[in-house]
Amino acid sequence: MSEYQAPLRDMQFVLNELGYLDRVRALPDCAHLDADLVDAILGEAGKFAHGVLSPLNVSGDRQGARWENGEVTTSKGWREAYQRFVDGGWNSLSCDPEFEGQGLPRVVSALVEEMWNGANLAFGLCPMLTRGAIEAIELRGSAYLKSTYLTKMISGQWTGTMNLTEPQAGSDLAAVRTRAEPVGDGTFRIKGQKIFITYGEHDLTDNIVHLVLARTPGAPAGVKGISLFVVPKFLVQADGSLGARNDVRCASIEHKLGIHASPTAVLAFGDNQGALGWLVGEENRGLEYMFIMMNAARFSVGIEGVGLSERAYQRARGYARERIQGTEIGAATRSNVAIIRHPDVRRMLMSMKARTEAMRALACEIALAMDCAERHPSQAARQESQALVDLMIPVIKGWSTENAVDIASLGIQIHGGMGFIEETGAAQHLRDARITTLYEGTTGIQAADLIGRKIARDGGLAIGQLSTRIQQVLEELAWVDDPQLQANASALARALVALNTSVEFIVGHYTSQPARVAAGAVPFLELLGLVAGGWQMARSALAAQRQLKAGDNDQAFYGGKLLTARFYADHLLPQVESLSRVVVQGGDALLQMDDQQF
Amino acid sequence: MSEYQAPLRDMQFVLNELGYLDRVRALPDCAHLDADLVDAILGEAGKFAHGVLSPLNVSGDRQGARWENGEVTTSKGWREAYQRFVDGGWNSLSCDPEFEGQGLPRVVSALVEEMWNGANLAFGLCPMLTRGAIEAIELRGSAYLKSTYLTKMISGQWTGTMNLTEPQAGSDLAAVRTRAEPVGDGTFRIKGQKIFITYGEHDLTDNIVHLVLARTPGAPAGVKGISLFVVPKFLVQADGSLGARNDVRCASIEHKLGIHASPTAVLAFGDNQGALGWLVGEENRGLEYMFIMMNAARFSVGIEGVGLSERAYQRARGYARERIQGTEIGAATRSNVAIIRHPDVRRMLMSMKARTEAMRALACEIALAMDCAERHPSQAARQESQALVDLMIPVIKGWSTENAVDIASLGIQIHGGMGFIEETGAAQHLRDARITTLYEGTTGIQAADLIGRKIARDGGLAIGQLSTRIQQVLEELAWVDDPQLQANASALARALVALNTSVEFIVGHYTSQPARVAAGAVPFLELLGLVAGGWQMARSALAAQRQLKAGDNDQAFYGGKLLTARFYADHLLPQVESLSRVVVQGGDALLQMDDQQF
Repeated sequence: MSEYQAPLRDMQFVLNELGYLDRVRALPDCAHLDADLVDAILGEAGKFAHGVLSPLNVSGDRQGARWENGEVTTSKGWREAYQRFVDGGWNSLSCDPEFEGQGLPRVVSALVEEMWNGANLAFGLCPMLTRGAIEAIELRGSAYLKSTYLTKMISGQWTGTMNLTEPQAGSDLAAVRTRAEPVGDGTFRIKGQKIFITYGEHDLTDNIVHLVLARTPGAPAGVKGISLFVVPKFLVQADGSLGARNDVRCASIEHKLGIHASPTAVLAFGDNQGALGWLVGEENRGLEYMFIMMNAARFSVGIEGVGLSERAYQRARGYARERIQGTEIGAATRSNVAIIRHPDVRRMLMSMKARTEAMRALACEIALAMDCAERHPSQAARQESQALVDLMIPVIKGWSTENAVDIASLGIQIHGGMGFIEETGAAQHLRDARITTLYEGTTGIQAADLIGRKIARDGGLAIGQLSTRIQQVLEELAWVDDPQLQANASALARALVALNTSVEFIVGHYTSQPARVAAGAVPFLELLGLVAGGWQMARSALAAQRQLKAGDNDQAFYGGKLLTARFYADHLLPQVESLSRVVVQGGDALLQMDDQQF
Repeated sequence: MSEYQAPLRDMQFVLNELGYLDRVRALPDCAHLDADLVDAILGEAGKFAHGVLSPLNVSGDRQGARWENGEVTTSKGWREAYQRFVDGGWNSLSCDPEFEGQGLPRVVSALVEEMWNGANLAFGLCPMLTRGAIEAIELRGSAYLKSTYLTKMISGQWTGTMNLTEPQAGSDLAAVRTRAEPVGDGTFRIKGQKIFITYGEHDLTDNIVHLVLARTPGAPAGVKGISLFVVPKFLVQADGSLGARNDVRCASIEHKLGIHASPTAVLAFGDNQGALGWLVGEENRGLEYMFIMMNAARFSVGIEGVGLSERAYQRARGYARERIQGTEIGAATRSNVAIIRHPDVRRMLMSMKARTEAMRALACEIALAMDCAERHPSQAARQESQALVDLMIPVIKGWSTENAVDIASLGIQIHGGMGFIEETGAAQHLRDARITTLYEGTTGIQAADLIGRKIARDGGLAIGQLSTRIQQVLEELAWVDDPQLQANASALARALVALNTSVEFIVGHYTSQPARVAAGAVPFLELLGLVAGGWQMARSALAAQRQLKAGDNDQAFYGGKLLTARFYADHLLPQVESLSRVVVQGGDALLQMDDQQF
């Protein structure tokens, strides 16, 4: 069973040749991050991903997490791996130095996260959820909550969870029913049932800090009456030691298609006296806080898509190089060859590779924008960066994960019949990837957010700025005398026109015909992902061409980047125009259908 | 858990309103098949699928087939269901009346097959493989083989298998190594290992008839030295009773992503003295015979895609009608609605529905062509029909199964997070569907067959005839004064131009630049599937419009057909132009990549 290898050279290309490292180093407190230091971090993370996490991926899938009498046992080796993860300081990489975090900017930590997900998604989910909980407490927690929880959660000594979903409240959180009754001393008693709680119960740490959405008595109906609470599994005493067990119990864990090693818990709060909870920030503003966390979580799920895609690609490429089958089309000899020589296998591999590279570069662009939005000295720059982040989070989440499902499925296809056999390992990637378009908001939810809050609301301002930046790359390309790059430019130019047409339609009809626009939301999200990926691939081609012209030694590497960008332009970008037709004309028939005509 | 319901009304629409039943009734010995008789057959089959097969689908998936000491136990209820299947005469439906088959034409039996696959794919595989084995014996078996095996296999008393694959011989059967040594009395001793043998061992019947590819001593290398043998699990004595156990043993069964209840066997032939085998037809012509069977099997796998798509659609539609979540976009009230009211959910359902209907109609068109190729009194008509069958088998197989994977995945998506939970049932459909693009030749193999043997070889003659038939429907549409149908016509016309452009490219470059053409083979297969599906949807719209004009009572049904065809034109057909660009320009970059640049 081949293990995950962190794609260090590709990651360095994005950071160095695409200029993201230079740009982040210009921010306050980031100048020390030179290429050597970053290489060292990525190198060590790569070793951990390869040597510790990847070997547990298959066994974790087979054994799964097990539930018995309210307790969850993680699969063999999980506890030791988690302890090494914490001891290595990996949990605190991107966290606030005030609470002993390492303050690494997102543009670097996103690549480290990609490695955890590529090596072992079921493992990576635990620190991902903890980060979300940390962020909520950092953002709006009281001094008591910060001092009690942050240092231990940042180190990884305790983990965190996000408790949103209830059986009747999935995509629609307005329907949350869990109640929070004030005790009188500032604390609350929480009662209700939460489902789909990732790592809601486990044996990796001695405490779990649940962030829980609930309603206080008399709160307004709907989303404006939801508050956010910290509910620890064990109450924390004044000296920081653990006290009594809180009234929260794991009623069961789910039997899922994938990520078997990640326990997905049903949590019962308040079967007895009610679970003690502490309000985060102000009452009735819980959903607002949760959405700030959720944006970070959605970005992270997008990174899961990148990591899984890379993993599926590596496995398929390895098989395609080793599996001997058939003769080569058009070759002089009739000897058998590795299947990587067959054009259709190459097509599938290139489709996996090109999209993975485009997604990674795009994720780094947005991670850099997150860093700028947080750290840039100029308010205008911070605001513009935040607008780009807000615009693109649903695309990073939706497009990267839809791609991941398709890429994992292509990975199976390259293995032929062997891909269907579980021992091969390719099927697990599809099973694992399949969750990513569902949790933290389905692709439909991402797309609704994209066309509504991110495009229609500002009248297309933020996406207009993005479009201008893509136009600038086209102008750069126009100066380069190279037919390969001209093909890229021409495909990207056509795609950009189609993007602008779609945006005009959305902005022009969102208020007057909201359902018709909504019918094209997911196709538009896909369209924007393809164009934004094409933008990054064009930048990648320009960078590679510069290196080749400069006579860089690594001709094969940069030549490969040029060809990969060209493949993206030839195979992926043509879809943009057909998607644009769907966005503009696709609403009529489906809205006219009566429910009973389905 | 909702059970499969045969889509009788949709099936009747295809048979009656699209005219396939009238056309098949014009063939010799088919006039008795009036609408009432066919309705009765479909109705009874639907009851069996719903009441007997569907309830075993989930339990079969959970228990799976079990292997112990060479014996395979099917999951609970399987034996009884198979016996009822045989007793009901379902196994012999489409078989030769000379051996007690019922001689039903393919255009009807294909719809019955769709039901078995929709209700329980893992079950349906057993009779499907038996049919393949029957066909080989009917086609080229000696009088001894026919009299010994056919009646019992046609009734279903014994099952059949197809033994092609070996560890080193998957897509490339030239690499088959299994040996067949002549005994001297006309029989052979078979030695070798076969893998991926569907129902290669089971407890449903007291004998299994293996059709096995093997090489005789001194046979030419490659595909021209492969012969086909009948190798029964138990030897058959002169009086037809079972004799000694043959030297074939089930070494293990595979642990697979899906179709868990269908045992996929590793068969060891000749661990001891060699398994006794009987030659089918002439030596060294085994692959040729196998390909005739394989064409039927490939068509059947396409039908699996249709059945699975229908099943996934039904489950998703049921959930979408019941699940209350969120408010309706643009509605006056803020009350919560079933998710089928959300435009994006409707889009997904329509995409599932439209493709399923297009695939079903197209499969019936090709099934009718099979019937004509076999039964039509005019040789010219038989030949033209056979040319259409040969052309379209890889499309029926490849397009329907690729669609099925995507449709099953959309089915999960409509369920949101619940889709990832195995108990929901949606995930099984994806796991089961995932095999269909792999076995009986991967999509890549289908596409290579399509562009090479089916298009380039006759210089585009057969596909030109298909293109002319599509053009005829466009001319029919031109006479109908209806904006809905004009939209269909315009989308189909654009798609037809793109198809013709692609065909010209393939025919023009297949010899001079074979690898470049091969790089676009799968995109072309998808393109042709989309256009051929669009042809059927245009026919469907025309038929529905006729019924509406005639004042038929079932306005809602026919109105739904019009809207479904319109959706197909708006959402699916636009992809054709982008695929055409990929076919024509997509070969360069991927062929230039050095293996090490991946």
